Amino acid sequence: MPHTLKVDLNCDLGESFGRYQLGFDEQVMDFITSANIACGFHAGDPATMRRTAELARRKKVAVGAHPGFPDLPGFGRRNMDVSAEEAYDLVLYQIGALDAFARREGLKLQHVKPHGALYNMAVGSAPLAEALVKATRDYDQGLIFVGLPLSEMENAARRFRVRFAAEVFADRTYQPDGSLTSRREAHAFVEDPTEAAARVVTMVREKRVQAVTGQWISIRADTICLHGDNPKAVSFIERIHKALKESGLEIAPLAHWLA
Amino acid sequence: MPHTLKVDLNCDLGESFGRYQLGFDEQVMDFITSANIACGFHAGDPATMRRTAELARRKKVAVGAHPGFPDLPGFGRRNMDVSAEEAYDLVLYQIGALDAFARREGLKLQHVKPHGALYNMAVGSAPLAEALVKATRDYDQGLIFVGLPLSEMENAARRFRVRFAAEVFADRTYQPDGSLTSRREAHAFVEDPTEAAARVVTMVREKRVQAVTGQWISIRADTICLHGDNPKAVSFIERIHKALKESGLEIAPLAHWLA
Amino acid sequence: MPHTLKVDLNCDLGESFGRYQLGFDEQVMDFITSANIACGFHAGDPATMRRTAELARRKKVAVGAHPGFPDLPGFGRRNMDVSAEEAYDLVLYQIGALDAFARREGLKLQHVKPHGALYNMAVGSAPLAEALVKATRDYDQGLIFVGLPLSEMENAARRFRVRFAAEVFADRTYQPDGSLTSRREAHAFVEDPTEAAARVVTMVREKRVQAVTGQWISIRADTICLHGDNPKAVSFIERIHKALKESGLEIAPLAHWLA
Amino acid sequence: MPHTLKVDLNCDLGESFGRYQLGFDEQVMDFITSANIACGFHAGDPATMRRTAELARRKKVAVGAHPGFPDLPGFGRRNMDVSAEEAYDLVLYQIGALDAFARREGLKLQHVKPHGALYNMAVGSAPLAEALVKATRDYDQGLIFVGLPLSEMENAARRFRVRFAAEVFADRTYQPDGSLTSRREAHAFVEDPTEAAARVVTMVREKRVQAVTGQWISIRADTICLHGDNPKAVSFIERIHKALKESGLEIAPLAHWLA
Repeated sequence: MPHTLKVDLNCDLGESFGRYQLGFDEQVMDFITSANIACGFHAGDPATMRRTAELARRKKVAVGAHPGFPDLPGFGRRNMDVSAEEAYDLVLYQIGALDAFARREGLKLQHVKPHGALYNMAVGSAPLAEALVKATRDYDQGLIFVGLPLSEMENAARRFRVRFAAEVFADRTYQPDGSLTSRREAHAFVEDPTEAAARVVTMVREKRVQAVTGQWISIRADTICLHGDNPKAVSFIERIHKALKESGLEIAPLAHWLA
Repeated sequence: MPHTLKVDLNCDLGESFGRYQLGFDEQVMDFITSANIACGFHAGDPATMRRTAELARRKKVAVGAHPGFPDLPGFGRRNMDVSAEEAYDLVLYQIGALDAFARREGLKLQHVKPHGALYNMAVGSAPLAEALVKATRDYDQGLIFVGLPLSEMENAARRFRVRFAAEVFADRTYQPDGSLTSRREAHAFVEDPTEAAARVVTMVREKRVQAVTGQWISIRADTICLHGDNPKAVSFIERIHKALKESGLEIAPLAHWLA
Repeated sequence: MPHTLKVDLNCDLGESFGRYQLGFDEQVMDFITSANIACGFHAGDPATMRRTAELARRKKVAVGAHPGFPDLPGFGRRNMDVSAEEAYDLVLYQIGALDAFARREGLKLQHVKPHGALYNMAVGSAPLAEALVKATRDYDQGLIFVGLPLSEMENAARRFRVRFAAEVFADRTYQPDGSLTSRREAHAFVEDPTEAAARVVTMVREKRVQAVTGQWISIRADTICLHGDNPKAVSFIERIHKALKESGLEIAPLAHWLA
Repeated sequence: MPHTLKVDLNCDLGESFGRYQLGFDEQVMDFITSANIACGFHAGDPATMRRTAELARRKKVAVGAHPGFPDLPGFGRRNMDVSAEEAYDLVLYQIGALDAFARREGLKLQHVKPHGALYNMAVGSAPLAEALVKATRDYDQGLIFVGLPLSEMENAARRFRVRFAAEVFADRTYQPDGSLTSRREAHAFVEDPTEAAARVVTMVREKRVQAVTGQWISIRADTICLHGDNPKAVSFIERIHKALKESGLEIAPLAHWLA
């Protein structure tokens, strides 16, 4: 093999708000390469954004904006029927706000990854996906857009010539059509970190994954989404990180290697 | 006279929110040179910010961030006992958010002017004024900070080597100590635009103004604050603009000439 | 005629927020019998609620809660995918908040009418409609629920034995299935107040309306929704009020006569 | 002894918001007699209010409204320069909203206790204290107002003939003038629960407390404020509760005995 295969590990961080603490950002940062930082609409606040960007600099983790719906009570997880134009404006606003804190640390913003319901709605809506991609491009042509492979998000990124990073989920199973198994169904989750890591290595190396039906499907994995909102999740991240390194993959931020 | 004296005209704009319309931005933009655009905390929203920046580009008006307290119900006019660090974070966030829309129009952000109670509190508080000035400088060393002359804002700007634009008020009277006459007192306002323009010309040319007591006091006037939230105010702006031009002053955005 | 036919006229009021003024509440109150008062989530604020309740008392207009989604930037007009339980909680909260101001005026809360997207979503969703009706009943068994006739709202009200007031729209046309013609289509609006009043009289007296196709459809009309957010709308209300009185209908608040 | 001396134990509860969890409400409810429930402005949300009221009913704890400033990012702990009228409206709104959830459980609202900065500002401001007391009285003449003894809150309650419950702090020390020692100073806190309980027993029985200077000062203690936002605090509450019972005091909700 002429060169080492690379993969990025991303996690949603900076989700505390005022007196409300959420997540184990400090621990998680030791094992990931890209931080998706909440921008104050569904979670996060200016002080948290500053502290999270500071932490990312110290831990040498790349930073991205993680814009969401203006729905703090619903944590951005409730679908909202915003127009494409409203989505564009919301996302551009949030990218700019976060970038102010990245610049303060001397960091260049690496990527944009939509949050929660905004992400899920954009998977299947071309106009919404386009709005998110255009906001990203209009802010900075060099930003990477992180989303679900083969979705409208990837289509929009291709159309607007924005670099696209295909995201897979280490702790989730897939349906034969490439979608995630709903959280409400059995076998939705991969709970064993060794198994999860093995699946991820296969996704990166062989560009395929075994669906819940046993069938192999094609998938591209540039970045792996991990969760860090409870101590068990942190230990899962640590073990995934270790297993990936042992498998010979190089774990590095997207901006270092994504074409 | 070797060169023409210059002055900037500024106005708070982009204060609409969702379905709530406020101000006569389109008309006002014909007569001013600098727009202070609300950033979504005390007024304004992402769509309004986009439209206001677009309008400023078309009307060739320089744009600045107009950050305020996170107090939409109070329109940012109620003092809030935030720490200097909280103020720094709030202001940096808002500057970044607004700049995203300025960049979209190909505009370079010209200035930062705090809004309402944040402005008034910073007049007399060195730590707060420092926080605002540092947020401005940390975002972009080239930004101009607009504030009350001889206040803690000017002191902080000098200390941190941030360009400072001294603001005067065309429609307000002054006390012998250089402060504004309280809105609750008689003779707080100058209602005749001709008289207001004459006062402004004197402030720019002679660097002094006549206080309510009749006494002359020193004042520096780089930029004149105007209001555009009712039709009468718009006509006042128009007449001030005309009178200043006729007096031989050059009306131009701060960034074109402020040392 | 053994007894006079009665009808109620309702209007959404109290939609101002902080410095943002909306609507012509004072004028409108002269012609309506029921005020739907915004409760601070999609519009309105505590001070506006107090002033609107005060005004209703003076003008002898019955008051109702007009709860909406927690979406001030979208004025409660964007669908939000809230659970039935979340909707129940939101509505109960808003009813209680408004009732505090009604009690202050010595008024008994008359009705609850959901706002905007919450109303529209409940038309077709049995679980959502049930949640709204249950919140109304749990607050006070005697409250009237105002909604679209023959919708899931009416079904839920029947099921939970809550008094239901069927609402029609004076300025809108109907489809053969009893739904409103979409605002985007031609002939969606009835602009002539004389024609609008004639239609309303027919709806109340004959319990039917002519759809855009010319076909007559059954409809029940306990209360007529009017709008008062611009001067033209106020004059429309005034003329509808006059025409209805001249037609011999009695205009009175729902609580006075609804079975 | 003719009759047993009584005391109430109160705690701020229902402070979670959306996905953000705060406090150990379930455990705390086993040891207190009055719950101050956040009303959605500085903390809490409709779902949390419903769950907290439900819990209070099950645990037989009396419920009160705990209104605060509209400042979720600052948890209601930052002074805000609201007018007395604004404060009145904010408090009346929040009482009504909370009462909706109390009524749902068949509970009668027992008391109102202002939160954080609103409480602290009302200690020394007669107009603000009056506004809070009037909102309480206007909602329900029978409500108890909980506040600092000998403060403007007590004065206002006396003036408006609203029952007043004097609150003391088990874990804080006092200055010779009856004010609390600032949190920033040494000896601000009483950390040993046995000592804290002994102090409280003395306050209830002898109506006096030893200030940090050693001097004894008069104090009245109807209700003791406790905190339950960390596991150590819960264990402190448990031990205080036990010590008070062992001392022969009767622990009972204010409404059962306060004159």
